[in-house]
Amino acid sequence: MKSATEELEAKAKAAKAASRLLAYLSTEIKNKALSNIADDLLAKSYEILAANKLDYEEASASGMSAAMLDRLLLTAERLQSMAQDVLAVAALPDPVGEVLEMRTLPNGLLIGKKRVPLGVIGAIYESRPNVTIDIASLCLKSGNALVLRGGKESIHSNSALAKLAQQSATRAGVPDGAVQFIENTDRALVNQLLKMGAYIDMVVPRGGAGLIKFVKENAVMPVIAGGIGVCHTYVDKSADIDKAVAIAFNAKVQRPTVCNALDSLLVHADIANDYLPKAAAELAKAGVEMHCDERALSILKQDSADLRLVPATDEDWGKEFLSLVIAIKVVASLDEALGHIEKYGSGHSEAIVTEDYGAAMRFLNETDAACVYVNASTRFTDGAQFGLGAELGISTQKMHARGPIGLKEITSYKWIIFGSGQVRP
Amino acid sequence: MKSATEELEAKAKAAKAASRLLAYLSTEIKNKALSNIADDLLAKSYEILAANKLDYEEASASGMSAAMLDRLLLTAERLQSMAQDVLAVAALPDPVGEVLEMRTLPNGLLIGKKRVPLGVIGAIYESRPNVTIDIASLCLKSGNALVLRGGKESIHSNSALAKLAQQSATRAGVPDGAVQFIENTDRALVNQLLKMGAYIDMVVPRGGAGLIKFVKENAVMPVIAGGIGVCHTYVDKSADIDKAVAIAFNAKVQRPTVCNALDSLLVHADIANDYLPKAAAELAKAGVEMHCDERALSILKQDSADLRLVPATDEDWGKEFLSLVIAIKVVASLDEALGHIEKYGSGHSEAIVTEDYGAAMRFLNETDAACVYVNASTRFTDGAQFGLGAELGISTQKMHARGPIGLKEITSYKWIIFGSGQVRP
Repeated sequence: MKSATEELEAKAKAAKAASRLLAYLSTEIKNKALSNIADDLLAKSYEILAANKLDYEEASASGMSAAMLDRLLLTAERLQSMAQDVLAVAALPDPVGEVLEMRTLPNGLLIGKKRVPLGVIGAIYESRPNVTIDIASLCLKSGNALVLRGGKESIHSNSALAKLAQQSATRAGVPDGAVQFIENTDRALVNQLLKMGAYIDMVVPRGGAGLIKFVKENAVMPVIAGGIGVCHTYVDKSADIDKAVAIAFNAKVQRPTVCNALDSLLVHADIANDYLPKAAAELAKAGVEMHCDERALSILKQDSADLRLVPATDEDWGKEFLSLVIAIKVVASLDEALGHIEKYGSGHSEAIVTEDYGAAMRFLNETDAACVYVNASTRFTDGAQFGLGAELGISTQKMHARGPIGLKEITSYKWIIFGSGQVRP
Repeated sequence: MKSATEELEAKAKAAKAASRLLAYLSTEIKNKALSNIADDLLAKSYEILAANKLDYEEASASGMSAAMLDRLLLTAERLQSMAQDVLAVAALPDPVGEVLEMRTLPNGLLIGKKRVPLGVIGAIYESRPNVTIDIASLCLKSGNALVLRGGKESIHSNSALAKLAQQSATRAGVPDGAVQFIENTDRALVNQLLKMGAYIDMVVPRGGAGLIKFVKENAVMPVIAGGIGVCHTYVDKSADIDKAVAIAFNAKVQRPTVCNALDSLLVHADIANDYLPKAAAELAKAGVEMHCDERALSILKQDSADLRLVPATDEDWGKEFLSLVIAIKVVASLDEALGHIEKYGSGHSEAIVTEDYGAAMRFLNETDAACVYVNASTRFTDGAQFGLGAELGISTQKMHARGPIGLKEITSYKWIIFGSGQVRP
């Protein structure tokens, strides 16, 4: 009998073998695989929901929180929404084969860069079972093979979804082995997977800070990870106050537990007296706790509204709250705001609210982050919102891919050179 | 007095500070910096050559080989050629600010990817002093700051060239600190540099396999490295024999000590009897030693020419010879050639010689390498030959950059989003 390690290696090896064929598989077959997955998510919903029920009952018995249980739960409606997401990826242009540039050199060589898949992607993720289908559809569409390793708490759901993806893809003509799923939930296997650089070209960790840190420290292959999003919104002196109130409220409150939510609100001193009371009144309606610097505190204290005000400490700057807490600071200038963001930002998403053209352009140019906004909520940083169909995650690094990781971001390129006998003089 | 470590950190920090301004410096100023460097290489040639003389005399006294001494040597002519290379980089389009894609989303957000510099690049290189100027010109043009660490044997030359680049750039209006050079040749500083992830965004090692391995294993920041080039040329049964002889000869002989030189020649059995004796006769003129598999050996043995034939061993396949040695293997099919290259190639440069359209297209599609050629010598894999002006190196990895590392390859992008008050529903 095979050991767990041998089984893991066999899966990684099979994915590598499949990746060679996937690299030049036709767009038709890849799209057919995705539409099969979408169909099967509905046709086989009974099986998927039965598997999910096992996970749900185990998690429930183990005392999982209601919020976590809700993340785990699949319903007929959620399966329908997953199927729609898969079809959205199918509808996107195939990134593979795109010629990024091509020209004829003086010696007659026709030379160009052609987009190719990366090869085999390892995905290590926690909790939400829809991630299994999200990642599988992005990888299949981009011609990458895939080794999936989901969390223990959703093992039955993930296993059923992965099997569905495998069968749907094979039926469309995708080579066997393209989608691999690790059934064994032994944690030691994650570390072994991270050493299989011979078969796996890139790893994407998707989960909490602990998982990301572990993967980064232990993987021998490249890792694309984001994780921390310390997001600022700077309200310039020339801001439209209503827009600035709505943007800050949306960025903080619409979904506070995610990486693109607002953490620190910076407000120009010239507008703080007018803006802050209005913004704070709105935020208070959602129960937001406000950690204010001295000047913000002195403005808001005069306010009669029932605000949850706390004096800010040094630790509030550069902190990702992931909850209904916001840090608020009054700044003297755009330069001070830029300096603060440079010092405390995590390179994720930063926004300015302004009606001043020059301030907008300076902010766009001088802010070093994956996504830089003028007059919009940082909550838009998301593969689906950006029109990428879905995402494997959001990268805050500058190498290879930055921001939402969609189809193009899991490709490489190769130089192709058409000659007629040229030799180098 | 500052310690060497403090001094190193101060330099890296100064480069980081300069990089913020460099990121949106005008193309005019960057081009002016490059033309100043080109001018000064000629105007100050006396100083540069005097510094080079110190290195040369020290190296000569220490018993350096003639080949290495020649690599070290600068002459008025070589300075002129360096100046021309700098002007070639100046003449290229500025990669920074290029908008890779942009569109308006249904909600009215105008969103796009804009190319930006990586930030600060660390270059750790050995021997040839022209690398100092090559790298400085690529980094300045692409808006990256730079920390240079050259080899001990060319310390005086590199120091003089780096100082020249600094002064020329500053005179053009490039922010102080953009080009840093480490004068101290203590090897421990390299390791310290590799830990300064807070200031240095990427490291490029340029030198022997030992240097590259050390950098890869010790750097905390991303590394782009190539290094090993195990290059194959496959002569298909439908090859034009004259072209195939010329291409193999050029790829093996024109400069055997470099990574894009031919290592293994694969020949289809149907053409081997006609092709091999002609190819071998040419290669023999340059004194090439041929490590032949059984079938190649039996064909060439019949030949009366004075050939240096050696039976190939398993170690010859996948070996980078870097000398006038070639491995020769007869294969039964294109599939066998593709399989051999997949097994033994290093993902650098691979070529097919064929007049068969289908074979050419299969080779282009199915070979997984940075550069894939039809009917041309692999010796063309080079930044200048590809029209990139110069190169920082050649990447054999698939993430971020593949093949010659020119201007675009040392950039990243950021998403820029122009809104008018949008919030996420």
